[in-house]
Amino acid sequence: MQQERTPLLAGTPRRNSEQSARAAEEEDAAIHGHPVPTAPSSRVREVALFTWALLATAAVIVLAVILQHRNATVPVPPPTETSVKPPSGKRNLIFMVSDGMGPASLSLTRSFRQVIEERDMSDTLVLDQHFWGTSRTRSSSSFVTDSAAGATAFSCGKKTYNTAISMLPDFEPCGTVLEAAKRAGYMTGLVVTTDITDATPACFASHVFYRSQMDEIAMQEIGEGVLGHTVDLILGGGRCHFLPNTTAGSCRADDVDVTAIAQKKHGYTYAHDRAGFDALRLGKNISLPLLGLFASSDVPFEIDRRNMADIYPSLNEMALTALTALEEATKDSEKGFFLMIEGSRIDHAGHINDPAAQVREVLEYDKTFKSVVDFLDKSETEGVLVATSDHETGGLALALQTPGELPVYNWHPSVLVNANASSEYLAHLLVEHMATNADEDEEDLRKWINEDLVVGRLGIHDALEVEINALASNPAAAMQAFAGMVSLRARIGWSTHGHSAVDVNVYSSGGPAAEKIHGNVENTDIGKFLREYLEVDVDEITKELREKMKGMSPAAPYKATEETNPHPLEWLQS
Amino acid sequence: MQQERTPLLAGTPRRNSEQSARAAEEEDAAIHGHPVPTAPSSRVREVALFTWALLATAAVIVLAVILQHRNATVPVPPPTETSVKPPSGKRNLIFMVSDGMGPASLSLTRSFRQVIEERDMSDTLVLDQHFWGTSRTRSSSSFVTDSAAGATAFSCGKKTYNTAISMLPDFEPCGTVLEAAKRAGYMTGLVVTTDITDATPACFASHVFYRSQMDEIAMQEIGEGVLGHTVDLILGGGRCHFLPNTTAGSCRADDVDVTAIAQKKHGYTYAHDRAGFDALRLGKNISLPLLGLFASSDVPFEIDRRNMADIYPSLNEMALTALTALEEATKDSEKGFFLMIEGSRIDHAGHINDPAAQVREVLEYDKTFKSVVDFLDKSETEGVLVATSDHETGGLALALQTPGELPVYNWHPSVLVNANASSEYLAHLLVEHMATNADEDEEDLRKWINEDLVVGRLGIHDALEVEINALASNPAAAMQAFAGMVSLRARIGWSTHGHSAVDVNVYSSGGPAAEKIHGNVENTDIGKFLREYLEVDVDEITKELREKMKGMSPAAPYKATEETNPHPLEWLQS
Repeated sequence: MQQERTPLLAGTPRRNSEQSARAAEEEDAAIHGHPVPTAPSSRVREVALFTWALLATAAVIVLAVILQHRNATVPVPPPTETSVKPPSGKRNLIFMVSDGMGPASLSLTRSFRQVIEERDMSDTLVLDQHFWGTSRTRSSSSFVTDSAAGATAFSCGKKTYNTAISMLPDFEPCGTVLEAAKRAGYMTGLVVTTDITDATPACFASHVFYRSQMDEIAMQEIGEGVLGHTVDLILGGGRCHFLPNTTAGSCRADDVDVTAIAQKKHGYTYAHDRAGFDALRLGKNISLPLLGLFASSDVPFEIDRRNMADIYPSLNEMALTALTALEEATKDSEKGFFLMIEGSRIDHAGHINDPAAQVREVLEYDKTFKSVVDFLDKSETEGVLVATSDHETGGLALALQTPGELPVYNWHPSVLVNANASSEYLAHLLVEHMATNADEDEEDLRKWINEDLVVGRLGIHDALEVEINALASNPAAAMQAFAGMVSLRARIGWSTHGHSAVDVNVYSSGGPAAEKIHGNVENTDIGKFLREYLEVDVDEITKELREKMKGMSPAAPYKATEETNPHPLEWLQS
Repeated sequence: MQQERTPLLAGTPRRNSEQSARAAEEEDAAIHGHPVPTAPSSRVREVALFTWALLATAAVIVLAVILQHRNATVPVPPPTETSVKPPSGKRNLIFMVSDGMGPASLSLTRSFRQVIEERDMSDTLVLDQHFWGTSRTRSSSSFVTDSAAGATAFSCGKKTYNTAISMLPDFEPCGTVLEAAKRAGYMTGLVVTTDITDATPACFASHVFYRSQMDEIAMQEIGEGVLGHTVDLILGGGRCHFLPNTTAGSCRADDVDVTAIAQKKHGYTYAHDRAGFDALRLGKNISLPLLGLFASSDVPFEIDRRNMADIYPSLNEMALTALTALEEATKDSEKGFFLMIEGSRIDHAGHINDPAAQVREVLEYDKTFKSVVDFLDKSETEGVLVATSDHETGGLALALQTPGELPVYNWHPSVLVNANASSEYLAHLLVEHMATNADEDEEDLRKWINEDLVVGRLGIHDALEVEINALASNPAAAMQAFAGMVSLRARIGWSTHGHSAVDVNVYSSGGPAAEKIHGNVENTDIGKFLREYLEVDVDEITKELREKMKGMSPAAPYKATEETNPHPLEWLQS
């Protein structure tokens, strides 16, 4: 098809421009009535005119037939190398990551919303309406990836070992799409709801052997890595990694003030609280580069944050801010921007096995996804949104059979509707209460736990003595215990507090460029798509990184968690 | 876009044909050198020619720009009513159902095959390469569907209550795609590996209030329903429902010989064993209608069947037989065929929580899917393959954290590679052994269990005493116990022996018609697609069914399993 069309399109304009000067002259003559100097004779001119008319008419017919044919028979041509090319001009790429969101989280959240908002059983999420495919997630070291290897697949387009931050199995760094985009003239941004030094954002703008090297990640993110400044906009949590250990809010091992280096050496504006965020006026009042760290570590789960909106901005608010700021900053540029937005804490709710927290995280992510789609719809710059997860967390299943009963063919969203706080927050309240009421007798404690936390916050009215006793006697395990009480009653099953190997969903605003990742793809295919869409040279960055980081090697050999665990059969013997 | 194009396409040919007669005359003149009678003056003629050339050129430019724009921005337009129309002529539709196969089963089987066949970590299943979307599965009575409501969504395109066989929530029957296809002149077939009276096949060719009414389903399937003969080809298991209770192999409550009625009254050929299947010569020697029942109930799991291939045909063999027979039978017809093929026992492996059996069931389904794709590629008749699941079974998760350990980021396909028998078969062997060795002492029994079954068949060399004791002391629960031993060591988690609510995958051979179900769809959308692709009138069948079945009502009110269960918290108190 392309071959048929190319000669016509290539030839026509050329023929056209040659003829246009002459045509203008002749038109002038026709209008003003005096002849212009022409070719040898009127007859020859007529033949030439006639030939032109005939050729042009033939071209009209051919083009019309092609259009007609395309319309009738090839509404959805299989993507070819040509048809999936990125747009030719300025473009924006927004990549969203729903950390730890597996396929069951969608059905979970959809049904929850149908119940809480009294919608029809056919009602769907915005994500559902933009379903694009699925992604295979295994890492080079395991059938079950962690977020570091998962994000390296996106940032570098390569498989690596669990815990690697844009480092490959040979312990050599790989250039990331964000670094290559910055080098090519794009503006860049990272938006998260957890520590900005956590694995997913880290993989786009830093290179370390192990994800736990967060002090180093913070330094590289603000421009202290071998490539210098790469991220123009940072919004999220994890402030403690940027403050010297001489200050109260620090979690660094050293006394480096990363916020000071960011501001003084790399020219960052620094915002660190809700007032600072509000001053950004959702992106309308931003001076880039900007470092916005609005929580010491994680932004609270959305189920809790909505009651602390005067302290913490939401994922959607931060995303809107980033979109507006980056669009404004690139308005006079030939290049657009690359923005990564992570719904970071869907994963945390999975780790805790807390379905009440997870549904609200997914809903906030869905809302943010819609904001990005709306932005692209309105923007004059071409752009695409691709969204996926790095892995599933928790082994979530929407069915739970308890010992001694027949399987039950249902689960109960209403239990999640009744819960209005996360297990994380309830555990925090419990520990705080016990610390400030150390002399409270056990009976009063159990009463307070049941009335204030279980009935009051979880909406559970049938707690068993054994459940309340467990909370009172072992507050360290309260977070999982609260989550278990909710899951049991909602009939939601979990198989682990870690990750699982199921394929995760891919979503997109669509369009021809995204055809490359339509269907079931490897997570590295998504990474390759990102760089290809932006048409940036990641290999050049890799080369530079390898030269400048030469001689670095990991402090300790890589060790999978499994090796440090007791034998899996041990519990059966106890 | 359509609006822009229409005037050009509509206008150009008309202008063209008016001009073409004149153009031919003028061309003739130009070639032969003698003028033809023309308009008043040569100047006017030139102006006319020039105007024509200019208009045609303008049209070329406009069309070229449209084509260019379409190419750059809309190579994959959203499907419209026009573009997703079924083909205009003869067509075949193959609908495959992977009963109980959720998203995790794919990752499970893909990694298993990578290990057992020593393939690269990027190796994928045939299914993966034909990934098309996902389907939402909830029924009208529950967030978790059963196979009956799931199959009714496919057969009738309507949501209904769990246990309904093509009956709606108002207890009225709904016409099925198979019935409407038969009425329209298509040939029809059902291929399964479980009882042909089981919910999935039943929903295409019968109407009863509860799936347990299998005696009645058998009768309707062979033509004793109110619509008469509807199924031309039946291949599968469940022979016992077709034999009178006066014979040994019967599971009917009555003494009706359904096979006799099928043969004498409805003209079926009847095959009931491997010799009978072999005589069909993979479909090259078939007289339709055909009733082929090759197992008393289920065809054994593929992991066991491969060692009993002299008794039972495989799913792939039955599917190939059906495709060849139906193609031959429709070769002189204006209509093609509708064939439903079910990988029935993926679901059973899920119910038992037996991952070693499930991976082989999915591999056989994948092989069968490939056979259908190959058939469509070679066939001269247009056709499409759509494949999906009715629901997920087991709450399968590819990760398992046991009490007292940290989460483990891995699972072990090698454990499934080592197992060479299903838990179902091992439990059968155990019960048989204990019946024939009633006086064996317990120590010898435990030794036999460990050496012959656990080491010999499951390849497990580290069985604990507690595990062997459980098998020896409670053979009734051995099936689940064997499966648990495999799952634990493979680090595979399950949350139920029933179904779960996660969306299931949709696969297709693709093409424009299937665009209607590209993405995330409701299971009823798939049912609607089936009838629309065949362009058959299901409503007419519904009307007829309602008239002819008037006055029938269920013997007992519908009751969800949950209502018959103990309270879900009961086990916590024991």
